[in-house]
Amino acid sequence: MAEHNPALTPISQLGEFGLIKHLTSNIRIKNPETLLGPGDDAAILQPGPGKQLVVSSDLLVEGIHFDISYTPLTHLGYKAVTVNVSDMAAMNAVPKQITVSLAISSKYTVEAMEELYRGLLAACEHYGVDLVGGDTTASPSGLMISITALGEADAATLTRRNTARQGDLICVTGDLGGAFLGLNLLEREKRIFRESPEVQPDFGDNDYLLQRQLKPEARTDMKAIFEAIGVLPTSMIDVSDGLASELLHICTQSKLGCKVYEDKLPIDPIALRTAAEFNMDPNVAILNGGEDYELLFTIPQEDFAKVKGHPDITVIGHMTEENEGRMLISRSGQAHELTAQGWQHFGAAPKG
Amino acid sequence: MAEHNPALTPISQLGEFGLIKHLTSNIRIKNPETLLGPGDDAAILQPGPGKQLVVSSDLLVEGIHFDISYTPLTHLGYKAVTVNVSDMAAMNAVPKQITVSLAISSKYTVEAMEELYRGLLAACEHYGVDLVGGDTTASPSGLMISITALGEADAATLTRRNTARQGDLICVTGDLGGAFLGLNLLEREKRIFRESPEVQPDFGDNDYLLQRQLKPEARTDMKAIFEAIGVLPTSMIDVSDGLASELLHICTQSKLGCKVYEDKLPIDPIALRTAAEFNMDPNVAILNGGEDYELLFTIPQEDFAKVKGHPDITVIGHMTEENEGRMLISRSGQAHELTAQGWQHFGAAPKG
Repeated sequence: MAEHNPALTPISQLGEFGLIKHLTSNIRIKNPETLLGPGDDAAILQPGPGKQLVVSSDLLVEGIHFDISYTPLTHLGYKAVTVNVSDMAAMNAVPKQITVSLAISSKYTVEAMEELYRGLLAACEHYGVDLVGGDTTASPSGLMISITALGEADAATLTRRNTARQGDLICVTGDLGGAFLGLNLLEREKRIFRESPEVQPDFGDNDYLLQRQLKPEARTDMKAIFEAIGVLPTSMIDVSDGLASELLHICTQSKLGCKVYEDKLPIDPIALRTAAEFNMDPNVAILNGGEDYELLFTIPQEDFAKVKGHPDITVIGHMTEENEGRMLISRSGQAHELTAQGWQHFGAAPKG
Repeated sequence: MAEHNPALTPISQLGEFGLIKHLTSNIRIKNPETLLGPGDDAAILQPGPGKQLVVSSDLLVEGIHFDISYTPLTHLGYKAVTVNVSDMAAMNAVPKQITVSLAISSKYTVEAMEELYRGLLAACEHYGVDLVGGDTTASPSGLMISITALGEADAATLTRRNTARQGDLICVTGDLGGAFLGLNLLEREKRIFRESPEVQPDFGDNDYLLQRQLKPEARTDMKAIFEAIGVLPTSMIDVSDGLASELLHICTQSKLGCKVYEDKLPIDPIALRTAAEFNMDPNVAILNGGEDYELLFTIPQEDFAKVKGHPDITVIGHMTEENEGRMLISRSGQAHELTAQGWQHFGAAPKG
């Protein structure tokens, strides 16, 4: 990057403090709970009276979670925030602050980091979150983004993973599998480009899938929707590793089984068509694809009327006794044991 | 590591979730403010009523901040917590929780990560901090430790960097330069080992310096000391990048100058002797060495009697008007402009 274009600025020209100052100079604090942002040994926050705080950290590593050859840095910055804010949404909490730590190899320029920060700050703006601090350092190879998100919640409406009850309905927001199919499209065009660099990438009318992969949105809108329809999930988790993995987390932690129905699983028509193009069972994308950042949650059976037909919510099954197992019921009525594959970073081939 | 010893367990055998579960299974929550530790989408905290929260993040990257060839993983884990807790001490806050995110390359085994966690948890025990969450993922190369620390403080006793006043006395805890000389000893023995692997390392009686480098302690004891002697620093920062860099931060942010005296700078006799062995000006270790994790702070002149002769505190100078510059007064009475070198990760040769 730097070596190819003399107009770009190597990070060494600014140094660590200079880079941090440069990148954080136009940060605008939005929340009254944020008393002091970047620049001191620590940020200072004043949580709302009586509020509980939720804290979550996520790591994105180049070559493991993202491939810089087809991931625009602005999108990457945005996604890094989304991933963390999604954990806040999964707790039914309101995200308030993030810290961002970056390890940056010398192939990146100041301009590249400006792009990344443009995405980070756009997401902060979108989610109403303050970037309050972090750390910036060199890396011997690649880029690493470590974000910690802080959010506020009321004790009475926090949603955990281990509190689903037998008989609860299992619901999911939005549609699933799109992010994984978007990744497959990007990987396919990358292979074609490697073999024939003169061929222009052809994503057809698959913008939706690319957006699901490159610029996913966290479902921070659901808290207000739950309030509006008068539903408090009995348990909730975000779908980052594929529906199967998340279902198993809720089952294990709630000491229950589950039954979900193949014909209820929500998938976008474009995703369905693209799965067919790839000769892929769409269930693989839904159950084991991951990165959809939708919410999976359970509600009492008596709330069925409140969610029925809601454009953002699909009922996909119900919780059972633990000894009934964790089952996917196929269209033909056969029961299959759900297995989690999710992200296999260790030992398996990296996905991104 | 794994490839040399079949008794060791590759991380791929446990997978990401398995590794996290294995490493966090014996975590004991100590603080009543920690309502929920690892295992959900986020940890849940209940800050004390009326308390302000401080948040700080630090990143340690293999090949940049540490050299695994002479850094025991237990020490590394301990130090990673110390570095973060030190930021809490610099705010005069009480550390309460940390999240730990790890990116781990395939050269590390489950046993190696157990060692690292032994150090992390020992430090959590020592500082009274709860490990409440984080993320664990693969890394294409090397080990990366990203920690976010959370602490509580009273608004009235928080200490920032930008609140020093003209005429304030500049104080420092403990002694300085030891960590940098410890690093130099380790680097020397590494060079000798590379050239002549049969030679046993010879650290002489320099245990103190090795400990300063490998297992530094954060000055979380100072909050109680300040209370006991009735002193509230007007500004404070921790010495992670060398005294000069930290002094300049306080000066810049408080819009003041400073005058510090060479003959007042506290250095341990072993550090002084080792600097001589290396033909190194001890001021380089003190001013630009870094990693001492002592506290640099300012106090009102009228508090001089309260700190005079205190075994943990040395007065090294005073704050001046901004236009008087940031000066080091040598033993011979000459004034030298202070310049920060600190950690030059970007573009300069890595230190560790």
